[in-house]
Amino acid sequence: MTDYRRLRVALLGAGSVGSQVASLLLRHGAELADRAGASLELAGIAVRDVDAPRDVDLPRELFTTDAEQLIVGADIVIELMGGIDPAREYVLQAINSGADVVTANKALLATHGPEIFDAADQVGAQVYYEAAAAGAIPIIRPLRDSLAGDRVQRIMGIVNGTTNYILDRMDAEGADFADVLAQAQALGYAEADPTADVEGYDAAQKAAILASLAFHTAVPLEAVHREGITSIDSSMIDAARHAGYVIKLLAVCERLAASDGDGESISVRVYPALVDRAHPLASVHGANNAVFVQAEAAGNLMFYGAGAGGVQTASAVLGDVVSAARRHVAGGVGVAESTRANLPVSPIGRVITRYQITLEVDDQPGVLATIAGILNEGRVSIATVEQTVLAAAVTPAAEAQTEDAPKARLVIGTHKAREKDLSETVDRLAATGVVDRVVSVLRVEGD
Amino acid sequence: MTDYRRLRVALLGAGSVGSQVASLLLRHGAELADRAGASLELAGIAVRDVDAPRDVDLPRELFTTDAEQLIVGADIVIELMGGIDPAREYVLQAINSGADVVTANKALLATHGPEIFDAADQVGAQVYYEAAAAGAIPIIRPLRDSLAGDRVQRIMGIVNGTTNYILDRMDAEGADFADVLAQAQALGYAEADPTADVEGYDAAQKAAILASLAFHTAVPLEAVHREGITSIDSSMIDAARHAGYVIKLLAVCERLAASDGDGESISVRVYPALVDRAHPLASVHGANNAVFVQAEAAGNLMFYGAGAGGVQTASAVLGDVVSAARRHVAGGVGVAESTRANLPVSPIGRVITRYQITLEVDDQPGVLATIAGILNEGRVSIATVEQTVLAAAVTPAAEAQTEDAPKARLVIGTHKAREKDLSETVDRLAATGVVDRVVSVLRVEGD
Repeated sequence: MTDYRRLRVALLGAGSVGSQVASLLLRHGAELADRAGASLELAGIAVRDVDAPRDVDLPRELFTTDAEQLIVGADIVIELMGGIDPAREYVLQAINSGADVVTANKALLATHGPEIFDAADQVGAQVYYEAAAAGAIPIIRPLRDSLAGDRVQRIMGIVNGTTNYILDRMDAEGADFADVLAQAQALGYAEADPTADVEGYDAAQKAAILASLAFHTAVPLEAVHREGITSIDSSMIDAARHAGYVIKLLAVCERLAASDGDGESISVRVYPALVDRAHPLASVHGANNAVFVQAEAAGNLMFYGAGAGGVQTASAVLGDVVSAARRHVAGGVGVAESTRANLPVSPIGRVITRYQITLEVDDQPGVLATIAGILNEGRVSIATVEQTVLAAAVTPAAEAQTEDAPKARLVIGTHKAREKDLSETVDRLAATGVVDRVVSVLRVEGD
Repeated sequence: MTDYRRLRVALLGAGSVGSQVASLLLRHGAELADRAGASLELAGIAVRDVDAPRDVDLPRELFTTDAEQLIVGADIVIELMGGIDPAREYVLQAINSGADVVTANKALLATHGPEIFDAADQVGAQVYYEAAAAGAIPIIRPLRDSLAGDRVQRIMGIVNGTTNYILDRMDAEGADFADVLAQAQALGYAEADPTADVEGYDAAQKAAILASLAFHTAVPLEAVHREGITSIDSSMIDAARHAGYVIKLLAVCERLAASDGDGESISVRVYPALVDRAHPLASVHGANNAVFVQAEAAGNLMFYGAGAGGVQTASAVLGDVVSAARRHVAGGVGVAESTRANLPVSPIGRVITRYQITLEVDDQPGVLATIAGILNEGRVSIATVEQTVLAAAVTPAAEAQTEDAPKARLVIGTHKAREKDLSETVDRLAATGVVDRVVSVLRVEGD
C-alpha cells in the first residue's frame, strides 16, 4: 500500500447518515485513499450520547461527546448533526481552525450560508455540501462547476421525497392525503411530525441552496415563497389526471427578465403544481427526487436519483470527503462561493405562469360571461374552459330543493398571467354572487 | 467592474462547438469573470483556414493559423480541433508550457488519455473534458468527484445521439434502418459517412472514458467490445415492442465480481440491447443522451440531456474553462486522474446477462425438445418461449410446396447466462438440422 499523507477526519453526528459514513470510511479506507491520494483517518465521532443505539455497529472507542475537542487538529470535519445550534458553532470553529467542512445540513446553509461561506473564504477553506440539496443526486457540482459557463434560466426540482411519495400514491391509488400520510409514516417515508416535509419547509431550504448556486446570488430563506401539499385532495388529483396532468410539489428557481422598469431578478418558490404527464418530471415516482435544469446554452438537463436515505446520502458525503482530501493534497486555497451576480429575489406577485382555476358556480345563463369578463378585466386570458353540471344537492325537505339553483363546476385553464393579476382576479371572482366556491387554483409548470 | 487577474485563453478550432465557445466567451465575459474570479481574455483562435465560413460571426483579428505560437503564454488552452494529430501535439505542448487544457476530444482521450494525464500530472496541470463524454450532460464531475466515495457497479449509457435518433424513429414509425438513416442525414443528425456513429465507434470512445472514471482504471479503447446497429431491422424492433422492450444502443460499463479463480474485473461494451419499456432509459427519445449509474451506496442515478450540438457542447466547455480559471486563482497543483484501482478489463465472454434468441425452425414434433436440450447442455436456462407458426413459404410449383416442412418462429428469453456459454450454444443451435436460421440474438439490459 502506498504511503499516503494522513488526513484526520472528524465526524459530528452518528444518525442514519453519519453511521453509514463512518462505516463506509472504515470499510473502504484503502480504496478511498487511492482515489484521494491521502489516507483518511477517522479520528472520532462526536455524539450526544455514546450509548445510543446506532444503525450500524461501530467501534466504541471512536465515540466522544466532546465535539469541540475532536475538531482541534482535524483536516476535514463532517457535520451531520442537523439543526442550527450547535452545528453552526462547530462548523465555524472547524473553518477557523483551517479544516475543510463537509455538511448535509440544508437548514444551516439556507439560514447561515453567507456567514459560513464568508468565514471559509477568509481563511481559504472550502465548504462541501453535495448531500444538502437532493440526497444522493449529484447536483451541486453540476450547477456550481459544469454549468458555470452557462446561464441557468430555470430549475424545477422534485426535492422532497416524502411529499413525492404521498402525491404519487394519491395519484396511483386515488387515496386521500391523510390515509397516504399515515401509510408513509408507517413505512418510515414520513416523520411523526411531518410538518417540515408536507408544508414545504424542507423543499424551500433546498430551493434556496439551488437558486443561490444557479444564479450566483445569496438567496435568503425568507425570500422563498412556500406552499405545502396539505390542501391537495383526491378530487384535485383526479381532475389533474383528467386534464393530462400530475400534481408534484416543485421547487422552482427562475430567472425573470427585466420588465416594466424592474431589472433582471429571480424567483424562488415551492408549491404544488400541475405538470404535464409527458414531462420527464411526471415520471418521477415514489420517494425519488429529480432536478430539471434549463440553461441558455446546454438546453434541458435532468438529474434523477434517491432523494434521501442514510446510505444514499452517505455516498454524497463521502464524495465530498474525497474532494476535500484531494484539495489538501493539491494545495491552494478553497474556491469561494460565486455570489457576485447578486440578483434581487422578486416577490411571488411578479411570477408569470399558467394557471388552472376550478370554481363552483350557479348553473344559469350569463354566469360564464360574467366570469370571462372579470378575468378579462384582470388581464388573465382564458385558454380552455370545461364546464360540468353537478348533481343537485340532496336536501331533506322537497321545498328546500326548489330554492337551490343548480350548480356547475368550471375548470378554467389560463394563458400565461402574472401572479399578482391572477390572485387579485381570483379574489374578485370569489366576491361575485355567481361563484359559490373557489375550489382550487393551481399553477401549471414545465411548458 | 472588479479588477481581476487576467488569464489568457487560447482556442484551437472554430467548428460548430469552437465558434459557439468563442462567441459566448466574448458575449458573457464580465459574467464569467465574476464567477471565475479572473478575467478570461480570448487571446486568439487557431484554425486551418482563416477565411473558412463559420457558424457565428467572430472578429477576424482573433484568427491565426499558428496554433503553436498561440499556445505560448496561454493560461488555458481549449482544444476543439478533433482528431488525433495535431491535437495531441498541441495538448502536450500546452501542458508542458504550464497551461490547463480543456478538450472535447473523445477520440484523443480514449486513445492517448494516459499519456496526456501523465504529462499533466508531471507538471501539476489539469485536463478538463466534460464535453467529451455525453455532450452537455454533466457526467464527468459526478463520476470523478460526487461518486468518488462510492463504488460504481454499472453504467448504462445512451451516449450517441445519432443512433438513438435512428432507433427511436424506427420504433415510432416502423421504418427501416436505411430510410431513417437517410432522413437523419438530411436533418443533420447523421453525417454523410455515418460509420463512427452507426458502428458504435463514437459510443465506444465515450464508454472507455466513462469506465476509466467510474472504475479508477485506464481503459484502453481496444478493450471495449463494440457492435453497431446496422443489423437492426424493423422486424426486430417490432418483436421487441411486442415483448415489452425497446432497442437502444447502450454503452455498458460494469464491475464483474471475482469468480472461478478470476479476480474482480470490469467489462466495457457497446451494443444494441433490449431495454424494458418501464426503464428510465427507454423514454430517452430523439437525439438525446442519458447515463444511468448504479452505485453501491447511492443506488440508481440518471443524468439526461442533449448529447451533441454546437452550443450545448459549448456549455460544457465553458464550465471547464471557469473551473480551470478558478484553479489558477486558488493555486495548488491539478488533481491527477485516479487510476490506481487498475482493474483488468474482461473479454466479452465473461459477461453475464439475459438474452433473447430468435430462431426460425421446422414446425414439427420434437423440435422444441431438441433445442431445449442444447440450451440445457450449454448451461443456458430458458425463462420464456414463444412460438409462432409462419405462413408456408410461397413457392412457384405446387410440388415444391410439399417438400417444404412448415416453419415456426421461436423467441427464447433466457435467464442470466454467461456470454461465452451463450454464443457457443447459439453456434450449436445453428448447426442442428432443425434450426433453419438464427434470426437474432440480443442482450437484455437494465433489470
